[in-house]
Formats: sequence, structure tokens, C-alpha cells
Amino acid sequence: MSAWRLVEDGPAPKPGSAVGPTTGSTGPLGGRPERPRTGARRMLVVAAVVLLTLVGAGGLAVAGTGMFAERPDGCVKPDRSIQLYAVELPKDGTQIRLGYGLTPETASYPGPTMEMMEGECLAITLHNQVSAETLAALRTNPAHPLGVSLHVHGVKYTQESDGTVQSASFVPPGQSRTYTWYAAPRNNKTGAQGTAGYWWYHDHVVGGPHGTQGLSAGLFGGLVVRRPGDPKPDRTYTVVFGDRQSINLRRGEATDTCTEVNPQPGPTCLVARKGERVEFIVVGIGNDMHTFHLHGHSWADTRTGMVSNGQPFADSIPVIDNKTLGPGDSFGVQVVAGDSVGPGHWMLHCHMQFHSDAGMSTMLHVLDENGNMPPGMDHQHGAASAPATDGGEHQHN
Amino acid sequence: MSAWRLVEDGPAPKPGSAVGPTTGSTGPLGGRPERPRTGARRMLVVAAVVLLTLVGAGGLAVAGTGMFAERPDGCVKPDRSIQLYAVELPKDGTQIRLGYGLTPETASYPGPTMEMMEGECLAITLHNQVSAETLAALRTNPAHPLGVSLHVHGVKYTQESDGTVQSASFVPPGQSRTYTWYAAPRNNKTGAQGTAGYWWYHDHVVGGPHGTQGLSAGLFGGLVVRRPGDPKPDRTYTVVFGDRQSINLRRGEATDTCTEVNPQPGPTCLVARKGERVEFIVVGIGNDMHTFHLHGHSWADTRTGMVSNGQPFADSIPVIDNKTLGPGDSFGVQVVAGDSVGPGHWMLHCHMQFHSDAGMSTMLHVLDENGNMPPGMDHQHGAASAPATDGGEHQHN
Amino acid sequence: MSAWRLVEDGPAPKPGSAVGPTTGSTGPLGGRPERPRTGARRMLVVAAVVLLTLVGAGGLAVAGTGMFAERPDGCVKPDRSIQLYAVELPKDGTQIRLGYGLTPETASYPGPTMEMMEGECLAITLHNQVSAETLAALRTNPAHPLGVSLHVHGVKYTQESDGTVQSASFVPPGQSRTYTWYAAPRNNKTGAQGTAGYWWYHDHVVGGPHGTQGLSAGLFGGLVVRRPGDPKPDRTYTVVFGDRQSINLRRGEATDTCTEVNPQPGPTCLVARKGERVEFIVVGIGNDMHTFHLHGHSWADTRTGMVSNGQPFADSIPVIDNKTLGPGDSFGVQVVAGDSVGPGHWMLHCHMQFHSDAGMSTMLHVLDENGNMPPGMDHQHGAASAPATDGGEHQHN
Repeated sequence: MSAWRLVEDGPAPKPGSAVGPTTGSTGPLGGRPERPRTGARRMLVVAAVVLLTLVGAGGLAVAGTGMFAERPDGCVKPDRSIQLYAVELPKDGTQIRLGYGLTPETASYPGPTMEMMEGECLAITLHNQVSAETLAALRTNPAHPLGVSLHVHGVKYTQESDGTVQSASFVPPGQSRTYTWYAAPRNNKTGAQGTAGYWWYHDHVVGGPHGTQGLSAGLFGGLVVRRPGDPKPDRTYTVVFGDRQSINLRRGEATDTCTEVNPQPGPTCLVARKGERVEFIVVGIGNDMHTFHLHGHSWADTRTGMVSNGQPFADSIPVIDNKTLGPGDSFGVQVVAGDSVGPGHWMLHCHMQFHSDAGMSTMLHVLDENGNMPPGMDHQHGAASAPATDGGEHQHN
Repeated sequence: MSAWRLVEDGPAPKPGSAVGPTTGSTGPLGGRPERPRTGARRMLVVAAVVLLTLVGAGGLAVAGTGMFAERPDGCVKPDRSIQLYAVELPKDGTQIRLGYGLTPETASYPGPTMEMMEGECLAITLHNQVSAETLAALRTNPAHPLGVSLHVHGVKYTQESDGTVQSASFVPPGQSRTYTWYAAPRNNKTGAQGTAGYWWYHDHVVGGPHGTQGLSAGLFGGLVVRRPGDPKPDRTYTVVFGDRQSINLRRGEATDTCTEVNPQPGPTCLVARKGERVEFIVVGIGNDMHTFHLHGHSWADTRTGMVSNGQPFADSIPVIDNKTLGPGDSFGVQVVAGDSVGPGHWMLHCHMQFHSDAGMSTMLHVLDENGNMPPGMDHQHGAASAPATDGGEHQHN
Repeated sequence: MSAWRLVEDGPAPKPGSAVGPTTGSTGPLGGRPERPRTGARRMLVVAAVVLLTLVGAGGLAVAGTGMFAERPDGCVKPDRSIQLYAVELPKDGTQIRLGYGLTPETASYPGPTMEMMEGECLAITLHNQVSAETLAALRTNPAHPLGVSLHVHGVKYTQESDGTVQSASFVPPGQSRTYTWYAAPRNNKTGAQGTAGYWWYHDHVVGGPHGTQGLSAGLFGGLVVRRPGDPKPDRTYTVVFGDRQSINLRRGEATDTCTEVNPQPGPTCLVARKGERVEFIVVGIGNDMHTFHLHGHSWADTRTGMVSNGQPFADSIPVIDNKTLGPGDSFGVQVVAGDSVGPGHWMLHCHMQFHSDAGMSTMLHVLDENGNMPPGMDHQHGAASAPATDGGEHQHN
């Protein structure tokens, strides 16, 4: 039992800190806080520093046990278990690249797109195969522990699966840890809204307490949680907008590796046949604002990216083809490829002009129903005006 | 009667300036405007400058009377009256700090959280206790008048309560002025949507015509307008994301002054028991974009931050755990503390990595139902990598 | 027939690239892409460069014919045809200014506000009257072709009307090209959501492959697509927030050219009588984030900017008075001028403090029902602290 306690019979903690202006009192909403520090708190901070040092040295198994629940309420035991590997990938120029993979050999950035159904509980065992040397090279402070983690958005998890330093829920080099995610369904009794949506997962500890260096190295991936009855897309692409005018950490020509014959669908080759339902899991990372724009296609600004037929409120739903996203945001887009507009090389880019000019632009290649592209101009991604170097990093926005 | 007039029988003012492309005419949508200035307008500008000088010297009572209505339509007379004080607080380093308070002694930043019900009309008498000397130190132009004001978002008010320089609705040092806010209800006859929502109030005149210096000194607070039947939270916290990577103008450890024993709920101590309904009024100020992210909890992107049970359109509502906000934006978040995920130190931070690394990060401390915290790691806010100095002001985004 | 082909009997293109974690396989989601370049692709790139050179020299009619469909599905033939002119306007200081107009004489920035009904198909013949010399001065790369184009958001068009370089759908100096826009209605059989909404159109080729220089010179305008039954506003104003703290490319006093007697409604004179329904088409361009804020008025964050009466889900719709927008975003705002709050000079500004202080602020002048303004303070736009020079261009956000 820690010292943390809301004392009932001490100076009354107000049940609500909102101040109805009738009360004439600000209650505990003090002015300039004095930042009280009890002796107990100071002790705890010291203890935490010691413990972090232990954790950094491999003391995690002890540190992470028995204090908080292992599984969120509603998950009696996992319905599925998977293995996930954090590995080092070849550098991109001088940039260290890391990736998550369902096997070490298939690790990539973004990592594998995860898919869950509401009600499902998933156990993911993360194996940290990134060397201490690489992790040390990425950290910004020598006191910061070495490890990788798995932090997820949207679904439910306890402190044991938070993936943060302060909850000691990360994985030192060479070790493993099981994270439990629960896609809580909506509860019609309590009105709880359920976890269906477009989410993402990422490291939260590489380099610093927010995983900034893990994210910029490639430790992120998309997650979609579906609800029974949700439309099932024919193709799902994860599109991550990030710093240095990047899409999935690439710029310019590197965003689009499609070949004319038998293009291989993937994060750097967005291709579909006319009429296929294409789903994008769009995620923002890093420090910059971006806007996701797709030519020729639009979507509904809803949970699913669609608006259902015959709904009484369908008339009020905004339909958009450009959406602002900041770091941490994620949303879903569903379009019927080429619907009304036909096949073609349809640009997908950030509409911040400096970003698109610097190469933050790719294509959704929509082939005809037979899988062929009508002859036409090829695409350039603005390569002429923006060679894919790192020189465009100065920020204009 | 001023010279302002839409002349009916002169050159026809178009009833709508939208140009249906069939008309083949742009109407009054001219190219490069010539910026016409009639003699009457020049006179008025001169008069305004003279008047502002008078106002700056204390001529407000005369200047603000009898030209525009005192109260918005629908407010016959105020249902409640409160006093609000603008006072100077101790500096934070070299930064001047001001605050609003329901008494001078309880002034704080953010100011008191206001709460209204739709249909209510509120009279707020603002007493300016900030010295002319301090206000002069904050202004960017010696011609700018000295005063503080109250400008509110969302609810209804006339020009007399706009809180701006050009409407002369501000308060010189040592004086008082009554502002009238009307939380207009929805009108089922006209379809007017009502004013229920998550709003905020702030100064609009300190330092310059947009109150930039008043805002950055601390003159802001949250406002929630409820509708009958809205869920009533157990706790309400106002969380203001601003420049210099700040939460409620603090960074790093200063964002979280909770003590282990009997933590005092307030803007710098976000604490709740498991199962309590916690409401956040989230506001953006300043110049930067931010994203509000809370670990382990999510909310519906609706007016109330919840989605009601059994609604035919509930399926379409996005559920999110990260939301972009710019200056001036405000929204509400409602979560059931620890629901499914249990107690713990749950991070609340801006997901712009540079911002969180620089200390724009705090905690929602969720205790168990008995008000106790299970023993575990303490939290660090990334203090190791980001000492709470002012050195982090350079902008990366 | 081009080489582009999804080969069915080759290495299987996965029908969906989403990886259910049960599969244990990332499929085609590879790690670091090798950027394969087939010989065919290299040939095509060479061909495209040659073709672009031809296009730049006037070979467009040949290049753009017969490869992709001229009209989107659903548009058998255009319901209306209009002429649009891209012309050079007087410089603003040293800034080149271009505009679209329904006649060359009425060209402006923003260009004419377009209005369509769902189901309508519109043919727009764009005549490029901008000289090659001016276009050459704007381009950032001598290899980039000279021309202007018309790229539209939200409505349907084929590659022939994309307005991009890579689809060769632009207009060299002195030439013309017909673009076809189809405001596809919603399809209650398929659930396709329709194209009703607030959109915009712009150049996509001046200066570089994203039209950055065309946009910053003035080649943009608003578009609204309505659905039968939508409320019809009394006045529509297009408000474009852009770089250099600009509203419709102006700052400070230049944003508001209203005269007291018979103010001429237009993009630089936002005026209405109390009780009129005023519609804003709000658009973001350039590189910066902004927030659109209007004093005294609020709107519903829906497709129409309103929330209809008696809807079962109306209670959940956020009502706002400040909305973040990034480049490429567009949305609609509908307010009843002066409703409850009365006549007055109501500020409309970006709530980023640096932006509003630098002059990104104008007024909605609400006159009384007789078209008169009660006597009162005149407005200043913060001119005292922010002369409308170009000196404010350094970016603070």
C-alpha cells in the first residue's frame, strides 16, 4: 500500500472542483501553487530514481509485479496471443531505423497493422531484440533507462501494459514482456461507448519518457477495432504522417515503390482496383501538423469513415476530402476506389504546401476492374522541385 | 445614429454575394479592392482615436452607454449576479502573472470554472485591481488603452459585453464594469441550436487589441453550459494548453502538485477515485497547436464528450483519446476514471513529442474506490530530460 | 494499354493488406523497401519527361486525349457550361497577384464563389490569360511546365479534370481546357454519401507540382454544393485563411473595406442585416494552421453549419465558435446575424494571438433590421500595434 490517499476526514477534498459561480468560493482551485512536498513524497521520488536505475539494469521482472492488475476488467483471459519483435533495421542514410514485426524478419515501419473485434482480449508478447548499444545511442539523457515498449491508443489496458517508464512497463534489451489489450465493447447499460475505432500503437520509452526517438526511428503501427456489422474493406493501408515531411518515414519517390507490373500493395505502394473498398488508417506522429488529402475521393467524418444509408442524421455528417491531424491523432478513411472518377494515379498528399513540395506526396493507383491502368502520364511527386534529400527539414509552418 | 447604412435605393447591395455561376457576374466581389474611405469614415476614425484616448483616461462610463443594448435578447434581467476580480499574482520567474478570482484572495490561473444552465442569464461585475503600471508594462504600444476585460466564448452577449477595445467594453484600472452573459437555450421553433457546450472566457485588451498579454499572464478560465438532462460529473478540471509547452501555464513538475496523502484536487492536481465521472474542460491559448492525449481512457467526440446509449446514430460517433486543438478551441472530455483499466498514474500530455519532452505532461491520478493508490512506480514527467526552465521556448513545430 | 497491371496469376497480390495478427505474416508489408525500378518504369519516366516538355510547349490537346474518361460516371453530359478566366491582377507591393473570374474584368482573389446542387454536372472552360513570362517568374524549377489549372475539392472528376501536371490536365498560356465537375448525389442503394458540402477550387500547377505559387498569388475560390432541402442563406462570404497572417490574402485594414454608407458586400466587406442568415465558406491555404473565430455567434459543427430541429441526435452535436483549420481544409458556418446579440461590429479573427495581432482580423458588421448601425466605437483591427506591412512574416507557431 503506497502513501497515495484521498483522506476522507482530513481537509475536505471537494467532490467536484467545478465552481458554480453562486458559491463565491474557488475551493481547492488555488492561485499560484506552492508545490508542497511532503517528506513521504521526497522519499518516493528518491525510491523511484533508485528503482529506475534497477529497471534500467534489468530489474523489471521484480519492479513490475503485483502492484497493479495485469488485465483490464472484462478480460478474464486473452482470446489470442501473438508474438511481436522489436528489431533494428538498416539505417536510412544516417537515421537509425527500428521496426516491429510479427517475426524478426518481417519487421517494418510502420509495423504490422493490427485488427481486433470489440470484445476481444489480446496478449502480445514483445521481444526486445534492439541492442543496448543502439538504444543508448538514441537516448537523450544517460540517466534514462534502456528498453522498448508497446503503448496503445484506444483499447483498454492496465498500468502493467501502459508501456511507460514511470509504470515500469517496458522491456530491457534481450528481454520480453506480455502486454494485454482489451477491445472493450460498448455497454448499453452504462452507456460506455466501446473501443471500436482507428487507433495506433507505438514505443513510449526509447530515448526519453515519451518515446520520441523510438517513434522517429520507426516503432509504430496501425490498429483498427471493428464492431459487428462494420463494413469490411478489401484493402487496408496504414498511412503515417510525420516530421521531415514524411509519409511512413519516407519522402518523394520513396513513398511510392509500386511497379507497373504486379505492384505489391503495402505502405509504400497504395494500389487498388476500381470498385474495391479501400481503408486508410491515418496517424500523425512527431512534432508537426499535417493535413491528409486524397484526390478524387471523399469520406464521411465518422467513426468508420462512412455514413450509413437511411440514418435520420446522415444529412448532418460532414463529408470531407482533407483532414487536419496532429501528432497522436488517428482516424479512418474508407473510399470506394475510383467510384465515379475512374482509374488513374490519384494523388495523396499533405496539403501544407511546403510539405507537399518537399515530397510529402504519394499516389493511390486505381486500376480498372481488370487490374489494368489506362495509358497516361506517369507521376512525378514533385521530384523535380524536391529531390528526396534531408535538406528540407527547416520548418515553415 | 451613425453613418453606417446599407442604402436600399443606391447602388443595389446584392441580397446574397454568392455567385451562382450561371449569372456570369461577380456582383460586388471585386478584384483588388480600392479601399474607399469616405470623409465620414475618416471622421469616425479620428473620433474613435479621440474617444479611445478618453477611455484610456477613464471616460468609459460615458463612452459605453446607450449605443448598443445592454443585454442580449432573451435575457430580461439577470438570474444571478457575481463579482469577479482581476488581480496581480506573484511573478513566475520574470513572467508577470494575473488572475481572475471570485474574491481577490482566491484569484488564480486558470480563473474559477464557471457553470451555467441553458436559459440562465448571468451578470458578472468585473473589478480591475491590476495597477496601471503593470498594465503599461504589458502593452506593446503606448497608444493602446490600459484596462482588463472579460470576453466569453459560446454564450450570448451584446457589444456592451464584448470585452474589446473597439466596442469600449473594457475596465480601466480601479474601475468596474458589469458584463451580461446569456446561455440561450435551443429554440425548437427556429432550430437555433442552443449554447450548451464547453467554453472559456478571457481578457481581450491587455497589451493589445486581442489581449495577447492578458492571456499569457493568466487571465482566462473555463466555462461549461449544461442542458437539462446532461450527465453531471463528479469532478471538473480545466486544462489549458498554451505556449512554452505549458499546461495551465506550468511545465514539468509544476503541472502536478499532488501529494500522496490527501492530494488537493485543482488545476495542478488531477485526481479521482475509480468510478468517478471526471470532466475536463480543455482549452487552447497562445500561438501553438497542441494535441490533448490521456492514457487508458477515451471519450466520444460529441458536445458532451459522451455518446448516449441507444441512440440510432451512436454507431457513427468517433471515439478518440487524442484531439488536436488550436488557440481559441475548447471542448469537453468526460471519462469514468479507471474504468476497466483500474487505478494508476495515467499520463495526460500533449502528443507533440517536442512539447511532451519539454514538460507538457501531467498525470490523472486514479485511486481505487477507497481512495488509495496501489503501490507502484512514481511518475517523472520527463523531468530528467526537461528541467522546468524557460529554456525550451524555441519552437520545433 | 499501359504496363500498369495487377497480375492475377503472378505472386499473389493480397486482397487485403491488413494483417490480422492471427496470421503471423506481414504479407506484402515489407520492411525497408528496395524501391524496385523495372525497365518499363524507367522508360515511362523518360516518356513522361518528354511529354511534359511537349505539354509545356503546347502539346496538351494531344497529350490529354483518349486515355482516361472525360466525364465522371453519372454525368452523361454537363447541365451547365461556364467560362472561367485566369488573369494577372495588379501586384500587391512586390507580390504577383492572379485571379479567376467569370469574365477577365471581374477576376479577383478569391475567385467567384461557385454553387452547385447535388446531381448537377458542370463544365467549366478555363482560359489561361496569364503570360508565360509571369508563370516563368513564379516557377521554382526551370524544368517545370508553364500553365494554370483548376483542381477542385469534394465533387467528382476524372483524371482529365484533375488539374495536375502528372495527369497533364492543365492549361498552357493562351490556351483553354474544359474541366467537368459532377456533384454526385448520395446513393441510398450503395450508401455513398453524396458530395454536398463546403469545398474550394484552386490551381495545382503554377510554380511547382502542387500549385503553391498559384495559390499564394490568388488562384483559389469557394464552392458550395447543396442538397435539396438545405437552408438557403441570405448572404455567402468566402473567407480564406492563409500565410502571412492573411484573410483573403489581406491583413489589417485591407481586410475590411466597408464604407459606412452603402457598404458593398464582398470578400473584404462582411456586412449583414440583423436576422439575415449569413453563410461563410471557410478555407485554409498555404503552410500555417489557423483558427476561425467569430464574436457573438456560434454554429453547429455539421455538414451545413446548422443542426436541424427535432433530430434525435441533435443533443450530441458540438456547437462551436472557434474552429481549427489547416491548409486544404474547408467547412461551412451558418449564423443568423445578430441573433440575440444585436447589431454591432463583431470581430472575425484567427485566434492564434500572433496572427490576430499581426492583422489577421476583420469584422462582421451587423446592421439593424433597417440597415442602420447604432452609433458606437469604430473598429481598429489592431492597426496601432500591427501596421499592414510585410514585416510580420516570421513564424511564431
